[in-house]
Amino acid sequence: MGASLRLPSLTSLLFPATTRYPSSSLRRTCFLRNRPASSGFATAPSGTASPETKSDAERLRSSDQAVTPRSKDFNAWYLDIIASAELADYGPVRGTMVIRPYGYAIWEAIQEYLNVKFKETGHSNMYFPQFIPYSFIEKEASHVEGFSPELALVTVGGGKELEEKLVVRPTSETIVNHMFTQWIHSYRDLPLMINQWANVTRWELRTKPFIRTLEFLWQEGHTAHATPEEAEKEAKQMIDIYTRFAFEETAIPVIAGRKSRLETFAGADITYTIEAMMGDRKALQAGTSHNLGQNFSRAFETQFQDENGERQHVWQTSWAVSTRFVGGIIMTHGDDTGLMLPPKIAPIQVVIVPIWKKDTEKTGVLTAATSVKEALHTAGIRVKLDDAEQKTPGWKFNFWEMKGVPLRIEIGPRDVSSNCVVVSRRDIPGKAGKVFGISMEPSTLVAYVKEKLEEVQSSLLEKAVTFRDSNIVDVNSYDELKEAISSGKWARGPWCGSDSDEQRVKEETGATIRCFPFEQTGEAKTCLMTGNSAEEVAIFAKSY
Amino acid sequence: MGASLRLPSLTSLLFPATTRYPSSSLRRTCFLRNRPASSGFATAPSGTASPETKSDAERLRSSDQAVTPRSKDFNAWYLDIIASAELADYGPVRGTMVIRPYGYAIWEAIQEYLNVKFKETGHSNMYFPQFIPYSFIEKEASHVEGFSPELALVTVGGGKELEEKLVVRPTSETIVNHMFTQWIHSYRDLPLMINQWANVTRWELRTKPFIRTLEFLWQEGHTAHATPEEAEKEAKQMIDIYTRFAFEETAIPVIAGRKSRLETFAGADITYTIEAMMGDRKALQAGTSHNLGQNFSRAFETQFQDENGERQHVWQTSWAVSTRFVGGIIMTHGDDTGLMLPPKIAPIQVVIVPIWKKDTEKTGVLTAATSVKEALHTAGIRVKLDDAEQKTPGWKFNFWEMKGVPLRIEIGPRDVSSNCVVVSRRDIPGKAGKVFGISMEPSTLVAYVKEKLEEVQSSLLEKAVTFRDSNIVDVNSYDELKEAISSGKWARGPWCGSDSDEQRVKEETGATIRCFPFEQTGEAKTCLMTGNSAEEVAIFAKSY
Repeated sequence: MGASLRLPSLTSLLFPATTRYPSSSLRRTCFLRNRPASSGFATAPSGTASPETKSDAERLRSSDQAVTPRSKDFNAWYLDIIASAELADYGPVRGTMVIRPYGYAIWEAIQEYLNVKFKETGHSNMYFPQFIPYSFIEKEASHVEGFSPELALVTVGGGKELEEKLVVRPTSETIVNHMFTQWIHSYRDLPLMINQWANVTRWELRTKPFIRTLEFLWQEGHTAHATPEEAEKEAKQMIDIYTRFAFEETAIPVIAGRKSRLETFAGADITYTIEAMMGDRKALQAGTSHNLGQNFSRAFETQFQDENGERQHVWQTSWAVSTRFVGGIIMTHGDDTGLMLPPKIAPIQVVIVPIWKKDTEKTGVLTAATSVKEALHTAGIRVKLDDAEQKTPGWKFNFWEMKGVPLRIEIGPRDVSSNCVVVSRRDIPGKAGKVFGISMEPSTLVAYVKEKLEEVQSSLLEKAVTFRDSNIVDVNSYDELKEAISSGKWARGPWCGSDSDEQRVKEETGATIRCFPFEQTGEAKTCLMTGNSAEEVAIFAKSY
Repeated sequence: MGASLRLPSLTSLLFPATTRYPSSSLRRTCFLRNRPASSGFATAPSGTASPETKSDAERLRSSDQAVTPRSKDFNAWYLDIIASAELADYGPVRGTMVIRPYGYAIWEAIQEYLNVKFKETGHSNMYFPQFIPYSFIEKEASHVEGFSPELALVTVGGGKELEEKLVVRPTSETIVNHMFTQWIHSYRDLPLMINQWANVTRWELRTKPFIRTLEFLWQEGHTAHATPEEAEKEAKQMIDIYTRFAFEETAIPVIAGRKSRLETFAGADITYTIEAMMGDRKALQAGTSHNLGQNFSRAFETQFQDENGERQHVWQTSWAVSTRFVGGIIMTHGDDTGLMLPPKIAPIQVVIVPIWKKDTEKTGVLTAATSVKEALHTAGIRVKLDDAEQKTPGWKFNFWEMKGVPLRIEIGPRDVSSNCVVVSRRDIPGKAGKVFGISMEPSTLVAYVKEKLEEVQSSLLEKAVTFRDSNIVDVNSYDELKEAISSGKWARGPWCGSDSDEQRVKEETGATIRCFPFEQTGEAKTCLMTGNSAEEVAIFAKSY
């Protein structure tokens, strides 16, 4: 161990898990939220408070950088986490984002899970060009209305002004239908079920890393069917897959349901959505699945010959989840210490921090740490051994807590002699989350770690469910709705109001209908706004 | 079995593997090369012959569509394969390509292999925005010279003219360096080794599916190092990974080497390349790895403090492989019957075709076929059971041969009674490639199939090596070079000529220096052009 290393003054037993995240080491990662808004992301429009007045980027880069407490300023906290956990950075063009390796690894975990599910349910991946003739966008009336304010246009190619300007895809329904029209002839060609992983561009004015950026990554599924029933079944199947993904993998207890007419996708008959409650109790639309009916097939003449020889327009769906989900994970589970990742999607599930004081202890500790790493790795656990010599164990504890790694294993000289390790949970701070004397014997340790990872996963979900449920208020009048919303909560109440009633709620409270949840109580209801009989309850909330 | 099914007139033993690919079933997939060139891909500029005069797309769609023989018109054959094997289609914008599921699955196989290798060698995936300020492209002098004729520019965003036009990335060195400059401070931040899977746009005038399209998919690796030696080692390591991939996975015996100055990447000090010989003996540059020196780090001031506290510019590399590789696979292995896929990257390695005449035979045959499928699937073999009832076995044979599936298993009633199957190799036509009486017993069959897949893989490589080596001529004079090139071959000879000598060869023969191969004979040589002493041999060829 080099003499230059700052030695820990105490043994592993005494490292306080609450040590402040050291500053100097983070200098290069902490400037994300301190760029002038004009050259990067605008401050979120509805942030609860203005960011702290650390306007001087230079000062910040060289001074102590503690993450803003979540309770103090949620938006500043969010941006601090993204910077400090090295998830993303600003791109040079306003509103664009560079997804850094650690943030991208979370996206890769999302991709891996969904990709398998899509294939299991009969979808094939493929790739459509991102340049779409402008005329395509104009073919479906509500689609052009919805998307034209957000388009990026290519007008010059190879040094020449183009005859027809090209849209950089904001979504691909139009070009997909253009191709489907050529591939679909008979009912035998149906269903046609595809997906693509791609980048999309929407010229958003108010941006926020992961949540809303000029360019983002997503998957977009597109299917064509012979009957409306099949299309409806598909749209529902995909929102179910998203729901299960949210609950089981990301520990986000989304509420799945149907969008109101006003909030339905531009070009869809029905939009299904999963809505997640973030740590500041704002709603995040985390995934959508659209029953497109025949809107695009009529606009693009996508027809097939049915079994009776009749020409019919196909029935379609589309569905998407994007890098926005990464933002949802941060804002659901993160705390003042940093990111907190559900084990199933954590790029690193276990970090091993070896601890030694004397050079004579080093070999033994590192040998033990390495064999622990091998045992976990062999068992399929994503494990990292942080054996860097320039950093103290205390620094490492804080660094990996900031990165949200679910479990930490500490191994010191005493642990080596007793053939044991210390295991700490990220989700339970301090001593309460620490267990001593876990045997290093591979099968015992692997079993213990797997069990703990499952416990962390369930515990995060449980916590999020409790938080969600304690922040949804059942309301029966507009006054109750207003009160719930103004106290920062979600309001759930019977609704059969008109589009303009809905618009009024939005203008007066800032809340929108997030969805008519699939889970309804089933009783007879009276609309909170009109007093008429309402078939369903709707959920209202402020949202990202 | 439905009465409408055209029954095979003979048992499985007698289906001729050479049956013409039936036409009607392919109608919807065979229009790719028959679009007017103005609305799709231009005819390849240096195609050996003009496409057949089937100019009427309507006629083609409804008439018999046999694939153009490879020997008759290589370019027409290539486009026919892409259409008939459903690999790709034209996008609506000139020069763009839709990658269809089967073509995309080949790309996914490429991604899976390379992604693992990149991570094993210490690279992390991440994502950079595709919009690059125009000013960035201008910062590195030779880079702007190389790329400015090919740029697509976004000039309008959100309905407004942009102050600075944005380049849709043709490659990402500039934006990568802009970010690296912010992330790299000390030698401790190095090496920085990342990769991204992304789409890129180059406004090409002469396009050809997979080979050269306006937009294509690729991976681009970018690294920064503290020393020139490290950067050089990295650039070489990556071309080695590409080389091994080409040989071992795609059975393409590329020749790896260094590009001449004229052919070096715009902004690199050295470009390493892998060059593949296509079936028409033209060269395809299938992957490149660049030692960028300090060209971009000087342009973007990407500096680090070294161990002595001195500020230094980083040394960099970048390297890429694209969807072009799919075109290389088609043009290396395909034959008149269609695509021929090396087992390791084949989306389907084994297709099972069940055969029955009478309804009484159907259940037995399908039960056996299903259990064979399960056995192979469990063993990790990518297998498909084609039990569609609308098609005859003969049609299926031809269809899956067109798709290049390496092995076919036939199961008929007689096979069921004898508990055996018939196995046919795609790479050995007719009876010679057919083996009868392979036991259905899972462990025997799995072992047999695995062995055969390996044999096909080696056999494809062997054939390609023989083809390559019989078409490279060692030359010692310019006359010999001209003769080799005009006979369609590659010429390999000692070279120390100037850039203008090289330019002259290009103008007079159409051939360029593909590379100075790493494998040199090592003897003293005399330059074929100047008569001076030459240190190396170069390979000259016409290329895509």
